[in-house]
Amino acid sequence: MNEAKIREKALELVERSNIAFLGTIGSDGGPEIKAVQVADREGMSAVWISTNTSSEHVGQLERDPRACLYFVQYDREPWAGLLLRGRVEIRRDPEARERLWEEGCEKYYPEGVYDPDYTVLRLIAERGKFWQFGTKVGFDLP
Amino acid sequence: MNEAKIREKALELVERSNIAFLGTIGSDGGPEIKAVQVADREGMSAVWISTNTSSEHVGQLERDPRACLYFVQYDREPWAGLLLRGRVEIRRDPEARERLWEEGCEKYYPEGVYDPDYTVLRLIAERGKFWQFGTKVGFDLP
Repeated sequence: MNEAKIREKALELVERSNIAFLGTIGSDGGPEIKAVQVADREGMSAVWISTNTSSEHVGQLERDPRACLYFVQYDREPWAGLLLRGRVEIRRDPEARERLWEEGCEKYYPEGVYDPDYTVLRLIAERGKFWQFGTKVGFDLP
Repeated sequence: MNEAKIREKALELVERSNIAFLGTIGSDGGPEIKAVQVADREGMSAVWISTNTSSEHVGQLERDPRACLYFVQYDREPWAGLLLRGRVEIRRDPEARERLWEEGCEKYYPEGVYDPDYTVLRLIAERGKFWQFGTKVGFDLP
């Protein structure tokens, strides 16, 4: 597959994934992983996640914004995996809050769109790695 | 749930997971993730993976052995996630090679159990974090 075809397949995987795995650097410098819901995408160049301000990975990202998101399809053939590496912007501005807010969010954030426990994360991807058929192809982003 | 019950559920998740997500520290210090096949387990205190010596995460683990494995069940209720954090031993000794070797491995390692591209990873877990029903419980290991 040429790079254009790889990017197309990687983008498809990002677009159809509701769940991804967020990698962060823990307080001792070791890696940590947590499953997150993908709330919005800007192609492959940025991915938006809403989360609790009080959650551990927000504190980790405040200390070190380097992060990655891993997307995977292993429930159907062909198996595919995509790693997006970059940095996370921690957003609490009205534009970001409103961008991801939808009906039902008040179940998690009872004070509404300005609930202090509501935080938006935006991973800005710098590099992608796509695995399929036992091979890996890396590419720069955006 | 008390800690004994949490540990029991976490162990069940490790035992029935064939796939897990390996977190490592990349060459620039940022986190990386890759899906791996779980080859063997020692309860929750150690997890065995076979991999290619030439694969990128082996080089990363040679530089920095701090790693994690994330196990997840999101295809059925109740959703559950488990993070095991610790250090990876890179093993190329006969005992480790033979422990994970099985019929069909020669497809990946044509030179057999002593193929130089065959490497065994053993994550020694120091700490677990289990998520279920929106709450997280941490515990020390083993």
